[in-house]
Amino acid sequence: MDEFSIIRKYIAPLASKESGAFSLMDDAAIIPTPENGYKQVVTKDAIIEGTHFLHNSDPRDIAHKVLGINLSDIASMGAKAKYYFMSAILNSSCDEEWIRNFTNELNILQQNYNISLMGGDTVFHDGNISLSVTMIGEVKPNNILLRSGAKNGDNIYVTGTIGDSALGLKILESDKKENNIKIDNESFISRFLISRYLKPEPRNNMALLLNEFASSATDISDGLIADMNNICKASNVGAEILSDDVPISEEARIFLETNDGLRNLVYSGGDDYELLFTVSEEYEDAMLNKIGSGNLRITKIGQITRGSKCLLIDNSGKEIELSHTGYIHNS
Amino acid sequence: MDEFSIIRKYIAPLASKESGAFSLMDDAAIIPTPENGYKQVVTKDAIIEGTHFLHNSDPRDIAHKVLGINLSDIASMGAKAKYYFMSAILNSSCDEEWIRNFTNELNILQQNYNISLMGGDTVFHDGNISLSVTMIGEVKPNNILLRSGAKNGDNIYVTGTIGDSALGLKILESDKKENNIKIDNESFISRFLISRYLKPEPRNNMALLLNEFASSATDISDGLIADMNNICKASNVGAEILSDDVPISEEARIFLETNDGLRNLVYSGGDDYELLFTVSEEYEDAMLNKIGSGNLRITKIGQITRGSKCLLIDNSGKEIELSHTGYIHNS
Repeated sequence: MDEFSIIRKYIAPLASKESGAFSLMDDAAIIPTPENGYKQVVTKDAIIEGTHFLHNSDPRDIAHKVLGINLSDIASMGAKAKYYFMSAILNSSCDEEWIRNFTNELNILQQNYNISLMGGDTVFHDGNISLSVTMIGEVKPNNILLRSGAKNGDNIYVTGTIGDSALGLKILESDKKENNIKIDNESFISRFLISRYLKPEPRNNMALLLNEFASSATDISDGLIADMNNICKASNVGAEILSDDVPISEEARIFLETNDGLRNLVYSGGDDYELLFTVSEEYEDAMLNKIGSGNLRITKIGQITRGSKCLLIDNSGKEIELSHTGYIHNS
Repeated sequence: MDEFSIIRKYIAPLASKESGAFSLMDDAAIIPTPENGYKQVVTKDAIIEGTHFLHNSDPRDIAHKVLGINLSDIASMGAKAKYYFMSAILNSSCDEEWIRNFTNELNILQQNYNISLMGGDTVFHDGNISLSVTMIGEVKPNNILLRSGAKNGDNIYVTGTIGDSALGLKILESDKKENNIKIDNESFISRFLISRYLKPEPRNNMALLLNEFASSATDISDGLIADMNNICKASNVGAEILSDDVPISEEARIFLETNDGLRNLVYSGGDDYELLFTVSEEYEDAMLNKIGSGNLRITKIGQITRGSKCLLIDNSGKEIELSHTGYIHNS
């Protein structure tokens, strides 16, 4: 199939909901004007084969990841995702079945997150696959969440559980590396952790519940401590995170029982795409009331300080030194 | 230099004009709300080493081309370009001097076209260089130019001169291929034609003069006849273009005197990034008055018909058959 047939058959249907996409047949798209008084949030993030995803990855996982990381950036700003544009740089390994699986997954995420493709381009070349997405969201000015809003005394929260994704990646890589991981690759536990790496679920609904209360936010893409340090730097504050309070999944807990050497990945591993945010005590009750007791829990893990960086503290009050605090992408 | 240093030293300064870019330090950008009543036009186009530009290209040319093609899409819609986002996927050949030259050229185009970087990402990998840009423009709803607005009887116009770029690419490629081109690569003429290929000048100012009069528009990226066919298809009309009326530069004329076999490239070659547009007779005089006699000429080259595709007609009234009507990218 040539590029035009692929676009007509598989890509253009993803853009059918928005008339301003002109079925991807004009030079550019006209996007709907944001609701009165709303601001537009725009993010752009690319993923490359061999750097951000493994060679021979399932096209559904690639589609999931490229929309997931951009959705997560929109959530970090407290905004509602609306439209996206995609440059798909593909190669000869992307046959029609690949394209069908890839676009099917895009379609599933479009439904789940209520977003629509508006434009972009599809090119075949003889190098690695790469996907670049630009996503546009909308948010009321008062509800914009920046990294720079944290204040001394604010409490620090995360959504969901931390570290699953980095452990999942370790398991995925254990096939090709000598690394003493003790787990059955086909077990329920590994499948859960791997799926958390391959199919992150960005917290866009939760972001819309939090955005009127939180003082700052980001998403955990580089690793809990590294991303907390981004907030500290932007806000000119420090932070103390209590290692025992960082929520981990039941699956991660069991996995770490026999792989204790990997425990620090909970704090330094990336790709969780959970929200990391701060809230002043003044708004904490109102926030907890609004969130209620849905499926996705939020957990208090520490507090903003007058310091200048994020410290990880153990249950005896001592700082835990991590060999690295940021995520090193697999390559 | 690592990615963070490059971003801080060379990329972030390109985003310093807009506070909503947060110096590229937050998860996303907040773009200014469009002027009251204006619509936003968004385009996204990527270029890849080996497909859209030659290996070992000058980084200034790469920067020029990736902004140029996106600026040209915004111009095609009759809109004013405002902001852009860029994913730069680089490799180890992109040393600090490369980055400096690349970002210097981005900066020059930012000044010339009054646009600003708002976000994106920079990644190093071990494959080909690719750049993906998303550009946002603004336009009054009445002045949006679509491919679909051409009507039977409308006159067809182009800006500037056609074919220089395709001839320039042929000359560039003559170093590596047996193709009987008769020209001194260092001559004034080749340098002009090559520069038209490497450094397209999208017609954004002209678009703002035309946008209240033209009935349809696109830019010439695939080739004059192929792009005219895009208008024909979107508008359900045909077109007749008079080959002798298609404006060519003095340099192209002299080059073709000794390379007559390449004459069809004027009609089928791409990458001109001139505007191709239609206007009804009713608005023609008003349009010509508004445009006045600036440096950039516009030329009437044919007329919209009741047919269904674009015919190229010679001075005896016969159709000229082209072996291909669309541009085949060098690879």
